[in-house]
Amino acid sequence: MSYSGFNHPSRRVLLGALAALPALSRLFGATGVRAASASDPLPSWNDGPAKRAILDFIRTTTDSTSKDFVPPEERIATFDQDGTLWVEHPIYSQLAYCLDRVPAVVKAKPELAKVEPFKTVLTGDFEKIGRLSLHDFEKIAVATLTGMDVDAFQADVKAWIAEAKDHRWKRPFTELTYQPMQEVLTFFRANGYKTFIVTGGGQDFVRVYSERVYGIPRENVVGSALGTKFGYDKNGKPFLTKEPKLLLNDDHAGKPEGIHLEIGRRPRAAFGNSAGDRQMLEYTKAGDGARLSMLVLHNDGKREYAYGPAQGLPNSKVGTFPQALYDEAKKDGWFVISMKDDWKRIFAFE
Amino acid sequence: MSYSGFNHPSRRVLLGALAALPALSRLFGATGVRAASASDPLPSWNDGPAKRAILDFIRTTTDSTSKDFVPPEERIATFDQDGTLWVEHPIYSQLAYCLDRVPAVVKAKPELAKVEPFKTVLTGDFEKIGRLSLHDFEKIAVATLTGMDVDAFQADVKAWIAEAKDHRWKRPFTELTYQPMQEVLTFFRANGYKTFIVTGGGQDFVRVYSERVYGIPRENVVGSALGTKFGYDKNGKPFLTKEPKLLLNDDHAGKPEGIHLEIGRRPRAAFGNSAGDRQMLEYTKAGDGARLSMLVLHNDGKREYAYGPAQGLPNSKVGTFPQALYDEAKKDGWFVISMKDDWKRIFAFE
Repeated sequence: MSYSGFNHPSRRVLLGALAALPALSRLFGATGVRAASASDPLPSWNDGPAKRAILDFIRTTTDSTSKDFVPPEERIATFDQDGTLWVEHPIYSQLAYCLDRVPAVVKAKPELAKVEPFKTVLTGDFEKIGRLSLHDFEKIAVATLTGMDVDAFQADVKAWIAEAKDHRWKRPFTELTYQPMQEVLTFFRANGYKTFIVTGGGQDFVRVYSERVYGIPRENVVGSALGTKFGYDKNGKPFLTKEPKLLLNDDHAGKPEGIHLEIGRRPRAAFGNSAGDRQMLEYTKAGDGARLSMLVLHNDGKREYAYGPAQGLPNSKVGTFPQALYDEAKKDGWFVISMKDDWKRIFAFE
Repeated sequence: MSYSGFNHPSRRVLLGALAALPALSRLFGATGVRAASASDPLPSWNDGPAKRAILDFIRTTTDSTSKDFVPPEERIATFDQDGTLWVEHPIYSQLAYCLDRVPAVVKAKPELAKVEPFKTVLTGDFEKIGRLSLHDFEKIAVATLTGMDVDAFQADVKAWIAEAKDHRWKRPFTELTYQPMQEVLTFFRANGYKTFIVTGGGQDFVRVYSERVYGIPRENVVGSALGTKFGYDKNGKPFLTKEPKLLLNDDHAGKPEGIHLEIGRRPRAAFGNSAGDRQMLEYTKAGDGARLSMLVLHNDGKREYAYGPAQGLPNSKVGTFPQALYDEAKKDGWFVISMKDDWKRIFAFE
């Protein structure tokens, strides 16, 4: 039984629904991330205001004669993950992971088989599961994401992400990263920027694959975080247990707070796609000197998905992008990235 | 009035007593950090087991033909600050900062002048201040470290650290880093290790000078952390306020927990000097493959200070290093660094 392709009307799970990302880094030079040409670092982008904004930002902030020059230690760029770096629709991959893990949890504690919401999850009935409440999903998150050794959790996620596939493309989640954004990550790093993921999803989950998929090391992943507890096993060997205690809810206002906690410096550039990214984009743009805030607009129902104000959907079911956010972008000088118009290609495998 | 040289029988303040570090990075090539010779990356170290342990560890973990080879992404080394990278005796510099800041706090809230512990601090009587309770110091920490914009706090610490001087050497705290440890930091980084400070002190405080003093960027400082709160000023500009809410007490068991939170990977090497570092050193050493745990022993009363078991002081007043820790080091294969015997030179200015 697998929920990887589960067509649930996705909702953000409190602990952070984290979509898992394409195994592109393994494919460098093979079928994966296409190398940027010497003349164009963003070959998967069409010419337009979004592409020009990125090129201009990098040019002016790395030119030591420019008034907008940014010293190397201040070159921090943050990227939301779900819906910004890879597909978040119709279900966050971390939610799929949690649902897939329920049978193992029930095997260890058989009494849960008769208890909701586990009983419903075990039916495999997508319709019923889709009607579970946020509170139910919290119970599922606590049962599947806490109580184990952090190393055991990492090993389990690593095994799952290698097998789990998206329903529509029949590919690992980790291949569904946006090729244009992979180029942006590479371009920023080539210009001395440190790239960070700042996700509403669980940072322990994303850290399992961030290096392989995005070239972003574990320590550069900021996300919703549970506390851990240090202890010793019966042989006196120390270990850390994942606790059901939310230390950082890295979404909305939690994003700048998480950035301060784990990075300690206001970003020079930030990329997001939903209302959960609003405060991060505001905080970034409010700093002195050159700052870049960009919003990915999902308006390509054919090649990916269409949701948000461009489609007359003021509040989409997933990755909410209300009209107010679009208006704020226009007013405050953020740039909106139109997937339909700005991206020549969506995925590396196309 | 300045407490920078205040001869208080130092004690760890809950929020993290953070000693401020030498301005050595500004002095590179001048009077500061001496360049390592091509043949010896650790010129301020005498030959001995400690120096050999460091050289062996780097050689075997970076030799791709060695069974102990460590892939680049796993090369994480963590360093306690106070007493490991710089002088912690007789007072942590962050505590000096808090005391120095009391007059400004009282000026803003004059009613505090008649309230303890502020009344006592304002007397400037070192003896009386030294008798304040831990609870009093917590009050001082809350009053001096919270309630302000994070940017304002950074600016204030930056100004203070540029002026404050240690009492004995009459030099800025930031010049009192240990030259042998500066060489270790440089040597590790030259071999692909990412170096992190993991301090019981406040990470917001240490981040102000970590780059300049140690070449360690802000995002590589893990320390005790207060929560922040995102909000908007009257012009709608977003900012973060430091809150009196302890998010991470990064000492003892909190060190491996903090490492997991902000780095997400077990260190390959760790350096400490007190009981507060015990769990970090245990956690590091318990990992698979090559691991290095080292303890700095303060046994040089002439060139620096002597405290700890080597002096028959089972519990020193500062940076407690009980006999049990020394015994554990011997038993578990940690290496003890004898300041007296292993360090040819203590400070760069000598």
